[in-house]
Amino acid sequence: MKEPQHKILDCTIRDGGLVNNWDFSVDFVRDLYYSLNAAGVDYMEIGYKNSPKLLKGADAGPWRFLDEAFLREVIPQKGDTKLSALVDIGRVDENDILPRSESMLDMIRVATYAKDLDKALELVNIFHARGYETSLNIMALSHVMEHELLEAFKEIVESPVDVVYIVDSYGSLDHKDYKHLVDKFKKHLPNKSLGIHAHNNMQLAFSNTITAADLGVTFLDSSVYGMGRAAGNCNTELLVGYLKHAKYEIRPILEVIERRMIPLREKVEWGYIIPYMIAGMLNEHPRVAMALRNSDDKDKYAEFYDKLTSAEVASAE
Amino acid sequence: MKEPQHKILDCTIRDGGLVNNWDFSVDFVRDLYYSLNAAGVDYMEIGYKNSPKLLKGADAGPWRFLDEAFLREVIPQKGDTKLSALVDIGRVDENDILPRSESMLDMIRVATYAKDLDKALELVNIFHARGYETSLNIMALSHVMEHELLEAFKEIVESPVDVVYIVDSYGSLDHKDYKHLVDKFKKHLPNKSLGIHAHNNMQLAFSNTITAADLGVTFLDSSVYGMGRAAGNCNTELLVGYLKHAKYEIRPILEVIERRMIPLREKVEWGYIIPYMIAGMLNEHPRVAMALRNSDDKDKYAEFYDKLTSAEVASAE
Repeated sequence: MKEPQHKILDCTIRDGGLVNNWDFSVDFVRDLYYSLNAAGVDYMEIGYKNSPKLLKGADAGPWRFLDEAFLREVIPQKGDTKLSALVDIGRVDENDILPRSESMLDMIRVATYAKDLDKALELVNIFHARGYETSLNIMALSHVMEHELLEAFKEIVESPVDVVYIVDSYGSLDHKDYKHLVDKFKKHLPNKSLGIHAHNNMQLAFSNTITAADLGVTFLDSSVYGMGRAAGNCNTELLVGYLKHAKYEIRPILEVIERRMIPLREKVEWGYIIPYMIAGMLNEHPRVAMALRNSDDKDKYAEFYDKLTSAEVASAE
Repeated sequence: MKEPQHKILDCTIRDGGLVNNWDFSVDFVRDLYYSLNAAGVDYMEIGYKNSPKLLKGADAGPWRFLDEAFLREVIPQKGDTKLSALVDIGRVDENDILPRSESMLDMIRVATYAKDLDKALELVNIFHARGYETSLNIMALSHVMEHELLEAFKEIVESPVDVVYIVDSYGSLDHKDYKHLVDKFKKHLPNKSLGIHAHNNMQLAFSNTITAADLGVTFLDSSVYGMGRAAGNCNTELLVGYLKHAKYEIRPILEVIERRMIPLREKVEWGYIIPYMIAGMLNEHPRVAMALRNSDDKDKYAEFYDKLTSAEVASAE
């Protein structure tokens, strides 16, 4: 069978954990892994590989601080679906990272803002030397200025990183923005694979992902039933159903949605919710909208819109 | 102020009525009209102009059988937002249609399957002669074969109809399908404005609508908070927020969502729901999925998928 042109990377546990504070049972994560494996999904991002020592005050849950022995318990028999973990600059201790040959993980992804690129590339070098596939996930691209990005490309193109991600942290980009960005990334990073991580604030995560895939982006992030911070991500079930390759099977994803995601969605919320739409439209971080959703004013949309737009005027003065 | 390049036509009441059997109060519809008007929305489709005599066995609600005297009560003072009504072939009595100069309605839209085109064009001729703007909404385009469509174009191009709609009844089309269809419609109907009516089964209604708008489609159908049959439509709030024209204001739409749509959505359902996604992906009418959602098996997605896919095989034999 010919290899598929694209790779689906499911980040339900990692990005979805931002919704329920990583309160996933081992049983849940194991079920998800075997479902993704049966569906032919190429990678599962099973959490963060941050260090509890460096993330002060945070609840120490296993999915934020992945431990190799623990991972072997969670997934006693690994299938074709590879495992990835995300690390944050300043929160990862490189001494925690075994050589890949001794690890359950196949890929380590480094999330970075453009301004922290040097630190991110240092980490990439270390993980690469230990045998991992690596990616650089440049967050908040809609807030990065052109000259900053061009500077960044010069360093990235020289680094050993395998995949460079376009991350639409605020869910504010449309198909024209992706056309522009993908063209630019391809031109300046001809030796790198590209990835997309979209948020669904304006119901554009799936369509932007398939648009980017058409433009030559290879790594496509998604999560089952869209579970991810605030408006969530591109839906894994949509990608698996849409991509034309015999290896992908939607049925196992439908089963895990039925078994796991529907009950979970009744307890915690993510998805197309008006305050997240407003934040996306205004190209802003969803944190203010998330705070609103945890308050008694959660459905006061017009007032929230007034607040965000008047704050914009003030902060631009 | 320069006229906007596009026209937003909100069909919350007409298409949304398929969700709640048109159980909208006069107060609700009036509030929606004035909200759309304040938001700069160009048209509001306020219901069907069918004849109760010709629609046997149906509950006679006012929004399915719009009456001029009643409309004057609902909207005592008309603003800039024009009013449209939809008619179905074989269900409209042309004697019910006043000349436009005596009517609250500005536009009459004729919904038709490709096979009923002759009857549809007869109706268009009558409404046009009475002074209305007219549109032809060709439903289920994903099931129409190429040669049928080319035959249809020959008749349509000679008719007085103002707008020809691409209707994605099953929510199965993507951006490439629209590119293909819009190019074909533009080539064969150079004297007509084009419209799009999308369904949101695969979360593509908004993105397909803005893609079509970029390609030169003028009339963009939408509904507030996406309310429409099954997976619903392109969201009015997304379009109003996205289209760059000073006349559009999102705030009145946010207010009416808060006041009307959130409470309504708690009672009746529409939107991205897995059985509708499956139907869209398989390019099928949502009626089987709608029946499922009204049964005890409403969340048995994998079983539903098996049923639809095995039925497909059987019916293709």
